[in-house]
Amino acid sequence: MELSRIAVLGAGSWGTTYAKVMADAGVEVVLWARRPEVSAAVRQRHENPDYLPGVRLPGNLTSTSDPAEALADADAVVLAVPSQSLRANLTGWRPLLPAGRTLVSLAKGVELGTLKRMSEVVAEVARVPADQVAVVSGPNLAMEIACEQPTATVIACADHDRAVALQHASTTGYFRPYTNTDMVGCELGGACKNVIALSCGMASGLGFGTNTLATLITRGLAETSRLGKKLGANPLTFSGLAGLGDLVATCSSPLSRNRTFGERLGRGQTLDEALAAAAGQVAEGVKSCSSIRELAIRHGVDMPITDVVHRVCHDGLDPQKAGAELIGRKVRPER
Amino acid sequence: MELSRIAVLGAGSWGTTYAKVMADAGVEVVLWARRPEVSAAVRQRHENPDYLPGVRLPGNLTSTSDPAEALADADAVVLAVPSQSLRANLTGWRPLLPAGRTLVSLAKGVELGTLKRMSEVVAEVARVPADQVAVVSGPNLAMEIACEQPTATVIACADHDRAVALQHASTTGYFRPYTNTDMVGCELGGACKNVIALSCGMASGLGFGTNTLATLITRGLAETSRLGKKLGANPLTFSGLAGLGDLVATCSSPLSRNRTFGERLGRGQTLDEALAAAAGQVAEGVKSCSSIRELAIRHGVDMPITDVVHRVCHDGLDPQKAGAELIGRKVRPER
Repeated sequence: MELSRIAVLGAGSWGTTYAKVMADAGVEVVLWARRPEVSAAVRQRHENPDYLPGVRLPGNLTSTSDPAEALADADAVVLAVPSQSLRANLTGWRPLLPAGRTLVSLAKGVELGTLKRMSEVVAEVARVPADQVAVVSGPNLAMEIACEQPTATVIACADHDRAVALQHASTTGYFRPYTNTDMVGCELGGACKNVIALSCGMASGLGFGTNTLATLITRGLAETSRLGKKLGANPLTFSGLAGLGDLVATCSSPLSRNRTFGERLGRGQTLDEALAAAAGQVAEGVKSCSSIRELAIRHGVDMPITDVVHRVCHDGLDPQKAGAELIGRKVRPER
Repeated sequence: MELSRIAVLGAGSWGTTYAKVMADAGVEVVLWARRPEVSAAVRQRHENPDYLPGVRLPGNLTSTSDPAEALADADAVVLAVPSQSLRANLTGWRPLLPAGRTLVSLAKGVELGTLKRMSEVVAEVARVPADQVAVVSGPNLAMEIACEQPTATVIACADHDRAVALQHASTTGYFRPYTNTDMVGCELGGACKNVIALSCGMASGLGFGTNTLATLITRGLAETSRLGKKLGANPLTFSGLAGLGDLVATCSSPLSRNRTFGERLGRGQTLDEALAAAAGQVAEGVKSCSSIRELAIRHGVDMPITDVVHRVCHDGLDPQKAGAELIGRKVRPER
């Protein structure tokens, strides 16, 4: 199943970057942008000045703001819109989707209310079998990839052949994709990492250093893994690129919105003050800590870090007390 | 098996810090320092000015430079000397060791020549069964723990009861130990992390950012885990505190000697120039990349990162070419 033409729907920084990766891998890519001025800039000037200023986009990457044009004859469709608006967008595009083609979700998160993973939302709305949906997840800060810094990632699909076709359509000299058939693990890794990044930010705001960061990353991954195992994931996925890799990148990067937001809370700001400082842009983990916590409670899984993050964000728990609570739990074996 | 009196042999920063942790946990601790002026400072001024300046040591932590005095009536013995001198030191102390007591190694590494882990060296030299030896490993930058910043760690021993006794003797409000019976996994994690930290430093010296760092950490842990599995470790240990936790702390910290050393090589310095800049202090990973690579070859395990680190350090491979070689390998599934 060779992919020679791929549609990418959504021209934010990650959608545009992944479109560039596939174009650099030799695929003809059509990028759909909601705003005509963005698609015109990509088409005529080979640049997306709003999201990837200064990055030259390849000639075999074109753009349109007409979804029907983007989707015509596409061998695969990449969905690059935010997680909480994926359902609404995809509902509009459904009549245009090419039959039988792989649908790839770049969004990460657990839908509020339904507690569904993004691939579940895609399969449900597009009315396709689960193994027709793939996800891309890993240590993927868009701007660094757009600058062609070396990185690896995971392309997950329950249908291994679909994952391999996407792997070949996105392998370049700077981007190295691995395949994986564990959708649950890859998606949960991507969703939970934002909550752990919030906790790392809080620790840093309280003045703590590298050990505390590394401890939160490790024990955060352990609780993610516990939830994943209960939901049918392979625990080893969490020590891979979509688990550990993505988590380390998000928790270490000064560019991470979740980490920065957590730092403000750690320094003693209230949720409202932190929101005001972030110009109203709420960090993804602030929402998903609640949906992930709900999922954990429903499945009887102990997630102490997610629990205190939720209580700091939404119940007024003091971050200092949250830290003391975590360190003061009953000692036990590592697993 | 309650531990009420513990000897710590070696008064460097980590030995002194772990002695303080156990004293804070309520144990009577005797710290052996080679130099009498160090033991006098600890005994009289409750400070180790050379290694932990400004840190007040508790009153139930005393010190001597006489090993026989330190070891008399000890319920457990903590060995806190550097890995490559452990064998020589322990040979001298052997006649003084209290019979049947747990010997705890804080050293990390694989002995050059013999390719033995530190606990194997201890069991061999002290002539005790393997399950009488324990190790402490985790995200443990000494100065941060000495300042009582929250962290977790792993106490590993094949004999679970001995690990639990040590756990109770080192649990405080800032230090949270977990037990584990997987010695091989915990020790390999500690040894291999220095090599991966070198590679992270090289990437940083070449100008690469967070994705590359996270990718090297993740794939570095994957190759460590492959070696560990072959040697009988539990692969899940590597996603724990002694694997991932220690690795993330070492690779993220600006205090890491291995990372700094790798950065110099990445910026184009030769091994000799980097050594000169580090005042002759060779980073641990520069030695252990060779012994770990030898171990991997002997057991038929593929360790591409360790291999290029060895070739950069000892065969004049250009770090830039090393990076291109890693990213250009044949694409494959994640595991």
